[in-house]
This record gives sequence, structure tokens and C-alpha cells, in this order.
Amino acid sequence: MKKIAIIGTGTVGQTFASKLITLGYDVMMGTRNVSEKLASAAKDGYGNPPFNEWYAQNKNVKLGTFAEAAAFGEIVLNVTQGANSINALKLADAKNLNGKILMDVANPLDFTKGMPPCLVPELSNTNSLGEEIQKTFPQAKVVKTLNTMWCGLMVNPNMIGGGNHTAFICGNDADAKAKVKSLMNEFGWKNENILDLGDISSARGTEAVLPVWLRIWGATQNGAFNFKIVS
Amino acid sequence: MKKIAIIGTGTVGQTFASKLITLGYDVMMGTRNVSEKLASAAKDGYGNPPFNEWYAQNKNVKLGTFAEAAAFGEIVLNVTQGANSINALKLADAKNLNGKILMDVANPLDFTKGMPPCLVPELSNTNSLGEEIQKTFPQAKVVKTLNTMWCGLMVNPNMIGGGNHTAFICGNDADAKAKVKSLMNEFGWKNENILDLGDISSARGTEAVLPVWLRIWGATQNGAFNFKIVS
Repeated sequence: MKKIAIIGTGTVGQTFASKLITLGYDVMMGTRNVSEKLASAAKDGYGNPPFNEWYAQNKNVKLGTFAEAAAFGEIVLNVTQGANSINALKLADAKNLNGKILMDVANPLDFTKGMPPCLVPELSNTNSLGEEIQKTFPQAKVVKTLNTMWCGLMVNPNMIGGGNHTAFICGNDADAKAKVKSLMNEFGWKNENILDLGDISSARGTEAVLPVWLRIWGATQNGAFNFKIVS
Repeated sequence: MKKIAIIGTGTVGQTFASKLITLGYDVMMGTRNVSEKLASAAKDGYGNPPFNEWYAQNKNVKLGTFAEAAAFGEIVLNVTQGANSINALKLADAKNLNGKILMDVANPLDFTKGMPPCLVPELSNTNSLGEEIQKTFPQAKVVKTLNTMWCGLMVNPNMIGGGNHTAFICGNDADAKAKVKSLMNEFGWKNENILDLGDISSARGTEAVLPVWLRIWGATQNGAFNFKIVS
């Protein structure tokens, strides 16, 4: 499977796209409106440069609508802002997702109640974004992983601690999880550092890591950290 | 400060009491009704032996009501079930808590919605048990720590990984945090492994670790693990 769709064009999506290209994948990013995205000179909510500056240096990445990208991909990667993920994936269209691996690395952060953000109430505690995606697209094979760290580490775990720290994975389909683990191996993740927490309901656990992640980031002023399970 | 009150008599409280006695502290455990607690032959919710079996082997620990224990302690330790902590601490009485360090290691788990438990909705996401205790007892110096691991590790971090893993601490009073860190040092925690996340609102982060903690425990069938921050 060498064709990957990336739903979302922010920093996380750009990080995955650049890495996947270097690994020899054929990548299409999906956005709501292609011409608007390419024309926009606005920085994103985090003050990052506009997409078109990155895209000018990465022309070997294809760009399409959410639906065009999803139709293109053999694996579909959700990197949208979690509070908007369901809407973006509906635009990608269930018919383009059915039967495919839908790798979800998003977090349902709610920025409406001050900083640091909390989780979207209806997507937390007794629910999760991962589960909500699986419920909304029951024929997709949702695999939740890598959402517990900064995107630079997602695709390059060897940046810190010799790569010896933990990525969680969960989802209902064992074969889909195996294929995603294989992709993570290409990023540098060793199998012994990928911990399978079971079905997609475990996304309630991994998404709930964000509140402490954000406070560790605030206390240390360094986002290039990860959790390692010591036992 | 050698007199410590332990509010709660469950496994966590017994673990702290035994350790504190070996460290030379004078310890009083507080319970709702002393004679009922001593008479009960019931196992606890986790199938552990009744309190009186443990107590028969630990007679150098004093036992009193919540209020008697809190009045006795120079430091007060909350080890009650998080969903009941506010009620238990109200019975301990604000006048016995005012001005004291109130070290809170409890988690607001909600067992009413199936297993694994979720967090008590009104004590999570935009609130936390640590904050609720501080709001309810504004003159106590609430320090939240050690709630992100199994109690055996709280008082004996050297049991795994050479003690080289992370304890979080938060609270509004710097001096209270310093004193709690000093007590943690006696348990074996090295300062470089105690990460101060700031004021008590960071309990929203550390209490939200429980959902993933419970799923890691479920997946590995081993509670003797902890998180280490790798950077």
C-alpha cells in the first residue's frame, strides 16, 4: 500500500507528508477548498507560516479536496483538528473510507474555554474521537495511535532517548493495527515500544493524555518529550 | 513534622501507613466509624482482606475518626476513594485542615458506568478533585501528587527501573510542595524525577492519566509500572 491520503494540511499533516515522501510513498493531502488553501497567506492558529510556503517546497505531494484525497489513499490519515474531524471526514465521504485503514492521530481539544485547552466534553471520558469516528464510519478500520506526542516525534522517534519510549495503538481490526505498526516501523518505531491497548475504546485513555501532556509542555517549555512505560 | 494523618483505611492508606511507620512517623488513620471498621469482616471492593486483619499486624498505627485523625496530623494525607473524598474531608472538618499540608493522592474514579471506570464528570476535564478540595478547604495547602501510579510504587519507587521514572506534583503553595517533595525523598524519589507542573489546576492533567493507566494495566496485566518522561 503505497498511496496515502492525509486529511488536513496543518503542521502535523505537513510533517507526515514530508516523511512519507522520503519513504517513497505517493501522498495526497486533502483540504476543504484547494484554491483557497493555495491562495491563503494567513498563518495558522499557532503562528506557523501559510500552507503555500511549505507546499512550494513540497510539490511532489499531491493536493486535493478531502474527498479526492480519501478516494486516492489506500490508507487514510486523519490529522485534522479533533473538534472538526468528524465534519472533515464526512466531507471526505464514507464511500471513500469504507474498507480502508483510517489512521487517526488527532485529539479533540476544545480551545473555547481558555488555555491550556480541555477536551471536547462530548468526545471525552465516556467517549473519544477515535470511537466517534469508528461509529460514524463503521466500515472504516479506525486505528488510533501517535496522538500522545508532538508530531516531530511521531515520524522520528529516534530524535530522543534512542527511540526508546512508548507509542500506544488501539483499534478493532487486528490486521489494520498490524499494517499501521508496520508503517510506524518505517518511521523508526520498534515493536517493543508500540503498546497495543486493545479496541478503539482505549482511545478514551490515549486522548486523555493530552491534559497532562499540555501541562508538562508548559512546565518544561519543551515539546520534544514522550512517555516511556517503565516496569 | 512527624505526625501524619491518613484519611482513609483502604489499601493505599495501609501502604502509606506501613511505610511511614518504618520511617519513624507517628501515624493516625481516620475512618468514618472506628468500631464498625474494626468489627467488619468484609473484604473491600477489590477483594482485599478486611481492615482488621491488616490492623492486627500494625497496632503501632493509631486509629480514629476522620476528624480525630485530621486534628492529630501535622500533614494530612487523602487516600479516600476520589468520588467520596470531599465528603470524607468535610467530616474531617475544615478547622482540622486549615493551615496544614493536605497531600492528595486520590483519583475521582466513577465506577457507576461500567469497567474500566471513567472519571467523575463534574471532577474532570474543566475541574479536578485536587482543585475541588482546594476550593472546599481554601485554607488548606493542597498538594496533588503520586496519583498516577499503583500505591506500592508511591512509597517505593525503587521497586522498578532503579527508581528512574516520573512523579508529578502540583499545588498553589511552594513551601507545601517543597515539604511534600522532602517526604517523597524519604520514600526514595529523587528530585530529578519529581516534576512540578505548577498550581493545583494541573491536577486536571494528572488525574486524567487514570484512563490510560487503567488500559495499560488491562493490556499488560501488571500494575507495577510507571511513566517516565523521556526528552
